[in-house]
Amino acid sequence: MNLAAGIDIGGTNILLGIVNESGKILNRTSWETSSFSSPEIWVDAVCKYLQEWLNHHPDANFIGIGIGAPNGNIHSGAIEDAPNLPWKGKIPLVEMFEKQMQYKTQLTNDANAAALGEMLFGAAQNCPHFLFITLGTGLGSGIVVDGKIVYGHDGLAGEIGHVILFPDGRPCACGRKGCVETYCSATAIKTTYAEILKKNNLPEIPKADAKYIFGRAMHGEKEAQEAFNQTGEWLGLILANSVAYTSPEKIILFGGLTQAGDLLLNPTIRSFEKNVLRNYQNKITISYSSLPENDAAILGAASLIINA
Amino acid sequence: MNLAAGIDIGGTNILLGIVNESGKILNRTSWETSSFSSPEIWVDAVCKYLQEWLNHHPDANFIGIGIGAPNGNIHSGAIEDAPNLPWKGKIPLVEMFEKQMQYKTQLTNDANAAALGEMLFGAAQNCPHFLFITLGTGLGSGIVVDGKIVYGHDGLAGEIGHVILFPDGRPCACGRKGCVETYCSATAIKTTYAEILKKNNLPEIPKADAKYIFGRAMHGEKEAQEAFNQTGEWLGLILANSVAYTSPEKIILFGGLTQAGDLLLNPTIRSFEKNVLRNYQNKITISYSSLPENDAAILGAASLIINA
Repeated sequence: MNLAAGIDIGGTNILLGIVNESGKILNRTSWETSSFSSPEIWVDAVCKYLQEWLNHHPDANFIGIGIGAPNGNIHSGAIEDAPNLPWKGKIPLVEMFEKQMQYKTQLTNDANAAALGEMLFGAAQNCPHFLFITLGTGLGSGIVVDGKIVYGHDGLAGEIGHVILFPDGRPCACGRKGCVETYCSATAIKTTYAEILKKNNLPEIPKADAKYIFGRAMHGEKEAQEAFNQTGEWLGLILANSVAYTSPEKIILFGGLTQAGDLLLNPTIRSFEKNVLRNYQNKITISYSSLPENDAAILGAASLIINA
Repeated sequence: MNLAAGIDIGGTNILLGIVNESGKILNRTSWETSSFSSPEIWVDAVCKYLQEWLNHHPDANFIGIGIGAPNGNIHSGAIEDAPNLPWKGKIPLVEMFEKQMQYKTQLTNDANAAALGEMLFGAAQNCPHFLFITLGTGLGSGIVVDGKIVYGHDGLAGEIGHVILFPDGRPCACGRKGCVETYCSATAIKTTYAEILKKNNLPEIPKADAKYIFGRAMHGEKEAQEAFNQTGEWLGLILANSVAYTSPEKIILFGGLTQAGDLLLNPTIRSFEKNVLRNYQNKITISYSSLPENDAAILGAASLIINA
């Protein structure tokens, strides 16, 4: 059975799994991203790790390396100016790996990789048209049409997080204002909660992150509940707008913020159905990913090779 | 050489052309839509016309009928509740034609048909990723990814005109508020112009349609020029948001409002480049269709059959 390495590069951690064609992860390892001062040093570490594993499994039919990374471009094979990574500029990972390992290597962005994982092994199996949304530090998206990820002309399609939801709205890391991810993400809900506290003349809570706000909401705090309701309201609106582009059958939500369960999902679905064009009403399922968060991206990255 | 009929159904007129594989329109006719009290009577008229033409051209290799119509659904083969047509409800045109003529028949929406025409014979030749926007009574769109129209799960993809640009904004014929087509269309600019006149304490001009406003702008009237600038500002914003979905190489604008030329195109491009995510800046061409308005939809509809 063919095997491939699936690698998920994040701002905090990098995960690697050796995956077989059935989507089973045979072996795992991980690194802290910040412990590598340059991508070259990290690539050396990966190659060393893989070579050792291959030495111990001489009969393994290892066929290549798939990588999901922020701003990973499938066309260029490079990470292009990822704001959340310690490594700056254009990093030609595919070239770097193929030079050292002589195995086929493929790179795409992290949301696309997770969407692929969901399509092959998760909630989007047998679903040729879906939207995949990751709600983490930012908002990432993978758009699937006719069973294929939409990459577009330059490989950079699927940036729903940078659709402008409110002109002249909240400042975004991209340099513009009002982007979706400044309203709908684990980072954004901190701002929303702080705004609600201020509006109600309550003291600021500097430590309040998404997990903290979730805990307060579950204990019945109105302000924390309002923060989730408001986030769901915005998310439902942008999802309603998004389906007008590709008319998907399903929308799958993924990432840290989905740990809030119904507290986020219910207001999101309510807002979606309220805001969506009648043609699409009561037709599109919004649900959470059925894969463990760490696995989807590894499986999807590996599938760039296994299912190529 | 294979021939097909290409039919463009509009709220005012219905156009038919007999088209060859090179995109040449050999024969044309047209009808007023309102002169047919039911679609059945119109289908009879088309079949009679085609049968006569075929009787006069016994050697013609006629292979079928392609139709573009508002709310035409390629999956169901029916027009589904088109607000701009005199014929109401669900009209199974493909079934109706195939029963009478025994030729293959295909139906899609009017913007998709025109996008196909543009792809095969116009400005989008050899361009696998583009957005096609029609600016007429409403705003229609055809989205092309990897050289194919995106139809989506239910055949109704590409409704950019019904993306909500401003929540709680202008009322839309779809029953919601703030849809793009209430800000960016030949109809919308009338509202915009009226609002500008009112803001400047000038009297209302009930007869002012897009053509009239264009004339005033060309004669140097500030309010009319502002109406085009404002329309371009909004259009540039929604186009900037739209490219984040499918990362096209080109955006092609089409339809009545494009007769305004640079008066609309210049502020649209300015606003697009100001609002677009840096990744897409200075990469995407916005231009007008290179096909005569009446031809694009006929050619595109025929190509549903000729290039199937």
